[in-house]
Amino acid sequence: MSIITLTTDFGTKDHFVGSVKGTIYSELPDARIVDISHHISPFNITETAYILKNAYKSFPEGSIHIIGVDSELNEENKHIALKLDNHYFICANNGVISLLANEIKPEKIVEINIHEHIATSFPVLDVFVKVACHIARGGTLEVVGKIIPDFKRLVELQPSISTDNKTIFGNIIYIDNYGNSISNISNKIFQEIGKGRDFEITANKYTFKKIYSKYSEFVDFSVPKELRQKDGSKLALFNSANYLEIAMYRSNLNTVGGASSLLGLNYRDTLTIKFI
Amino acid sequence: MSIITLTTDFGTKDHFVGSVKGTIYSELPDARIVDISHHISPFNITETAYILKNAYKSFPEGSIHIIGVDSELNEENKHIALKLDNHYFICANNGVISLLANEIKPEKIVEINIHEHIATSFPVLDVFVKVACHIARGGTLEVVGKIIPDFKRLVELQPSISTDNKTIFGNIIYIDNYGNSISNISNKIFQEIGKGRDFEITANKYTFKKIYSKYSEFVDFSVPKELRQKDGSKLALFNSANYLEIAMYRSNLNTVGGASSLLGLNYRDTLTIKFI
Amino acid sequence: MSIITLTTDFGTKDHFVGSVKGTIYSELPDARIVDISHHISPFNITETAYILKNAYKSFPEGSIHIIGVDSELNEENKHIALKLDNHYFICANNGVISLLANEIKPEKIVEINIHEHIATSFPVLDVFVKVACHIARGGTLEVVGKIIPDFKRLVELQPSISTDNKTIFGNIIYIDNYGNSISNISNKIFQEIGKGRDFEITANKYTFKKIYSKYSEFVDFSVPKELRQKDGSKLALFNSANYLEIAMYRSNLNTVGGASSLLGLNYRDTLTIKFI
Repeated sequence: MSIITLTTDFGTKDHFVGSVKGTIYSELPDARIVDISHHISPFNITETAYILKNAYKSFPEGSIHIIGVDSELNEENKHIALKLDNHYFICANNGVISLLANEIKPEKIVEINIHEHIATSFPVLDVFVKVACHIARGGTLEVVGKIIPDFKRLVELQPSISTDNKTIFGNIIYIDNYGNSISNISNKIFQEIGKGRDFEITANKYTFKKIYSKYSEFVDFSVPKELRQKDGSKLALFNSANYLEIAMYRSNLNTVGGASSLLGLNYRDTLTIKFI
Repeated sequence: MSIITLTTDFGTKDHFVGSVKGTIYSELPDARIVDISHHISPFNITETAYILKNAYKSFPEGSIHIIGVDSELNEENKHIALKLDNHYFICANNGVISLLANEIKPEKIVEINIHEHIATSFPVLDVFVKVACHIARGGTLEVVGKIIPDFKRLVELQPSISTDNKTIFGNIIYIDNYGNSISNISNKIFQEIGKGRDFEITANKYTFKKIYSKYSEFVDFSVPKELRQKDGSKLALFNSANYLEIAMYRSNLNTVGGASSLLGLNYRDTLTIKFI
Repeated sequence: MSIITLTTDFGTKDHFVGSVKGTIYSELPDARIVDISHHISPFNITETAYILKNAYKSFPEGSIHIIGVDSELNEENKHIALKLDNHYFICANNGVISLLANEIKPEKIVEINIHEHIATSFPVLDVFVKVACHIARGGTLEVVGKIIPDFKRLVELQPSISTDNKTIFGNIIYIDNYGNSISNISNKIFQEIGKGRDFEITANKYTFKKIYSKYSEFVDFSVPKELRQKDGSKLALFNSANYLEIAMYRSNLNTVGGASSLLGLNYRDTLTIKFI
């Protein structure tokens, strides 16, 4: 039985998540349902894409991912189901898939057309769950929709490169649980453009000349404890998702704060890497 | 194996939810446990009833619902287990069931009497889980309690009708994850009293003359994008649970705010529908 | 198949928890994964120990507990796996186990040494999950690490006793979901030192001369409702984990507040019990 994952902006207080799970179990008593996140900022498909891009590959091939963000059906926001990278995704055709997997060619995309008899203001429950259970039972995409050539493409918050190849311009696309500010500059782009040159990162009024590969590299363990880098010192690193992140060492949003609050690096803010 | 759901005010930081699940798995290794909500406001049985009423019907018949809100045993707050609408509920006899299913006649109710040897300050763990596992194994209610004729009835926050049948008086009973303010006026009452007449809704100082059936109905897609209703405009609609809701189009409590904060429509506040 | 539990400071918005679960299911399709908490304050091993100590015993023997708090590998923070009290724990050797089970002798401890080919900034995903799945499949600890004689011991926030045996000095070690302030003074120490003597508890400027065994003991049900103890009155009790707790009767952190906010009893604050 395939795994069905849920990524939504429903929160976990309301009845929505429980209703969705109850409906899945009613159709598929042996379903395995995994919450990826229910705390996406309302309607934020950039966040959705960042979270799901970094989670879905950990799941077995054939897993079915329901995306319950900005999913109300209207004439500009159709529902789609697709197979991509050997995983299934069910979502609105609002651009989220292009942000999540722009570079991967989908194997098959359908526009879902099982809505005739369903007048719904809760499409995740009434439509997406039906499609997910159909796929989990081994059904084909063609049965629940008509094939379309491509999903909606969104170009937003992509890093850009100066014409002299000396500067990468990026943006903060996500603030994580520790308050770290994560940019859209991947290690891959950094390597391709930088080609080993020295560099300087500028984010707000702060600069960084080194990118760590893990937090604890930041600490020199040969130095006595009382002389070391202190909790709350700032650093740049490629995080476990391989994106450039501005972090505070051992930060805590509820007490000392994180990079987002202390350095003023929030969603959509810019940062640049200049190669020398 | 029946599903066991959990609806509590425990939060998800403390050890309470983990302890409950561990105890269930210790008794029933193959249990399927589903979280409905652990973020009920402490001791708030109105919220509990709203959430569980809208979630339980999605689960298969025979599911067992543990309600861990205001459940400490005392002489005025006995523990009950009941079968109602082909679902099982285990909770304190504090009125929550009457708010959740006032109109449905329970098939059987017992007052739980397995406490003799259990001196507990954590009854959900020590009592409710035992009863749930007993039911899940196919046991009868009579084994864990003595039959009682009815559960405690609470009459609170029910909508009322003016004697001339021209006005429905309701209250806000729930604020959802998007900050939408949900009233206790159901579509059913609205239809029965209104009988198709024109109407005007008044909530705080705001009025509404139309009730939408889904959020995106609010937008006129024939109008160019830049001239359309903006995010954050207010509207009235019957939500997916079929209650009258005052909403902000694509609201976000953390940024622009929602109906609850922007229109000042909070828990217990009144709203009226006048038919013309 | 053993249960694998997760106790982390990851939060539930980011992709971390989803990635960990996906990886476990990829290795063990039939795994049973239980969240204990993902809302530990960042890097706080005292909180971690309090939560897991009160949760793990509810799980069946043989359960495997992954602790994803302060787990980045460095030369002063090695990874360990151990069997203790017939449960398995996988964590960093940062003292958390000594806070969680100081008095229980571990059956076997290994320092994990499967890192050779893993350059990781997400050790819970890359290392702890591998070890957990190995144990779940029946593998032995020796295969994933070398045996070490003991884990790191931390002595912090332990209660102390005055030399005349008349006073117990304790600290607040945890604030729970209701805002109750929980101390490190167990019922066991209280009984051993107090031996039935009268006592007075002092916490900040407040004193208590009685310790309840459950919240509702605080209320005298023979008194008419309007004359009873009110919600929000303060009391001392031994909580369901058997630690001395300063509570507000039916408190709510979001409205009236809890003991932590109203009485100013926060993490690390002191309280004393004087026997008379």
